[in-house]
Amino acid sequence: MGKTWTHEPALISATEASPPALDRDDIDRAAGQLRNRIWRTPVIRSDRLDELAGARLWLKAENLQRGGSFKIRGALLAVAELAAAGSRGIVAQSTGNHAIAVSLAAAAHRLPATLVLPANAVPSKVQRIRESDAEVLLVGSTLADRLAAVARLRELHGYDVLDPYENPHVVVGQGTATSELLDQVAEAGGRLDTVVVPIGGGSAIAGACLAAAGRDVAVIGAEPQNVPAFTAALCERQPVTVVPQHTIADGLRPERIGDLPFELAHRSVAGVVTVPETAIAEALCAAVLRARLVIEPAAATALAAALSHATGSSTDIGVLLTGGNVEPGLVASLLTDRPDEAPLH
Amino acid sequence: MGKTWTHEPALISATEASPPALDRDDIDRAAGQLRNRIWRTPVIRSDRLDELAGARLWLKAENLQRGGSFKIRGALLAVAELAAAGSRGIVAQSTGNHAIAVSLAAAAHRLPATLVLPANAVPSKVQRIRESDAEVLLVGSTLADRLAAVARLRELHGYDVLDPYENPHVVVGQGTATSELLDQVAEAGGRLDTVVVPIGGGSAIAGACLAAAGRDVAVIGAEPQNVPAFTAALCERQPVTVVPQHTIADGLRPERIGDLPFELAHRSVAGVVTVPETAIAEALCAAVLRARLVIEPAAATALAAALSHATGSSTDIGVLLTGGNVEPGLVASLLTDRPDEAPLH
Repeated sequence: MGKTWTHEPALISATEASPPALDRDDIDRAAGQLRNRIWRTPVIRSDRLDELAGARLWLKAENLQRGGSFKIRGALLAVAELAAAGSRGIVAQSTGNHAIAVSLAAAAHRLPATLVLPANAVPSKVQRIRESDAEVLLVGSTLADRLAAVARLRELHGYDVLDPYENPHVVVGQGTATSELLDQVAEAGGRLDTVVVPIGGGSAIAGACLAAAGRDVAVIGAEPQNVPAFTAALCERQPVTVVPQHTIADGLRPERIGDLPFELAHRSVAGVVTVPETAIAEALCAAVLRARLVIEPAAATALAAALSHATGSSTDIGVLLTGGNVEPGLVASLLTDRPDEAPLH
Repeated sequence: MGKTWTHEPALISATEASPPALDRDDIDRAAGQLRNRIWRTPVIRSDRLDELAGARLWLKAENLQRGGSFKIRGALLAVAELAAAGSRGIVAQSTGNHAIAVSLAAAAHRLPATLVLPANAVPSKVQRIRESDAEVLLVGSTLADRLAAVARLRELHGYDVLDPYENPHVVVGQGTATSELLDQVAEAGGRLDTVVVPIGGGSAIAGACLAAAGRDVAVIGAEPQNVPAFTAALCERQPVTVVPQHTIADGLRPERIGDLPFELAHRSVAGVVTVPETAIAEALCAAVLRARLVIEPAAATALAAALSHATGSSTDIGVLLTGGNVEPGLVASLLTDRPDEAPLH
């Protein structure tokens, strides 16, 4: 596991584009708009994961969220905005969860939707989108492939594009998950010193940074060692495209961090942990066997970072378990082929 | 799936032994004693299970409880009582979860414990007991085999017996799970008309009946079609030993309902659903794939009853997901060998 990468905020200059001014008030407003439209998912404790982590873990179980991931939060807000503006339909690209969320949100507004996913998208995620009557286009393997397809579809249908990284409603919506986690821990009499969030395109970490602002909690990102797009962006002080190697964390495959998320997160994030594939797999097994939670590999990447002691002297670590949309066959094979049964079970 | 069996309370006479007078006040007191010693496990909602059930399900996730099942509730209360009375050690028989719970509770009081399980006990449950330094004796396959071993060990060591069915602290403790469920649904602005609880030795259903008293909620039991011990007891108006066939619901293998649970439950229970093995397996898959929860087959038996529409016109059904201590290989094989993938996923 890569060591915690702690950047020096002073060394990183602001990007030139002027991003939307977002802050914690936007998160609070969004939380109000989402009330009764999503589940207030529980924060789950597990003695047997705490043992592994050497700290108290507070697991925000967005794997139990509507649509199977926290992405419904941003999608509901953004689609409502587009619908109110008279949208004729939505087109969006995604590795899967944003697409599921957009398809559900569009269906709620009776808007047609076309979702662009990579050809290697997880079959169960594709099936889930089709169940909500949205169209699915599987194309290429890179972010660039998908963005090109989105541009064509926008032209063809006159649909609005709902970008998973650059749309401020999406980022703010995703941030409500971390905000809710912080509130729930406080309600339970606890206090987090650290929150760990997985990084794909960056909306989760950007939302977490917004939600944590002024709350004296360190936000740590976790990304696959095989797709270190945020680590690379921090090094280069701007989003860069990395050459991705294969990761089971299909939700974290975007090979470039979004501009808006980078802008919002790069000054506030306390560090990034790059997680090897074996640790992602082990964390997924630990969630199933120790905490009885089915999570997807993206969520397991954050859990792996928390279990790795990479968060240093933290005593109370919030972990954003972003989703549970995992291929049943992957769970079955991980449970069957665990290299070392004893420590995990 | 067997039809809901609704008994006529007037037809069933009281058993002759005079049982301890237990009521809802005992449950409330027990809940106070357990505060901060167990997790207040969440009540989880799932649109995709509601679709299958044709009703709103409120899942009390005791699979996320300390020790992996609701049995820690009764064990903590009963062991505290024995410890206060100067116990030298505890001996208990169980198909698994009561034994895990007793081993944890005994360890908390630094009391030695010996647990008697059937030879076909689930290996991961046995391992879990050994991890807490308790002794495990695997013996025979019937309840009678285990009770004989318990009697010998009691004599040999001078230990106290902590019976999983006849001990009133155990029954009251298990009842706090249902009581908490009813409270949590009310806090969320809902109201249950039905609670479904799995039946093994009977402590869950007896506790549920105590907890539901005066609350205008029907308590339904669910037991494997292959071990219909409670259904048989209701027919005979007293506990009887049935000839058990194999069930994957290892926690529901006791072939006879306890006297105390029968006494407490037989007048109050609104019905019993007998669940075929295929439905138990399907419900377990549905929990994993639709609700992202790892549950054991005993809990899946209650879920299966709720999904089967056997609860009639109920609109809001509480389901006591009693535990999550399932063999990883069973989950893997169920996920791999699903006869019909589409409807469950």
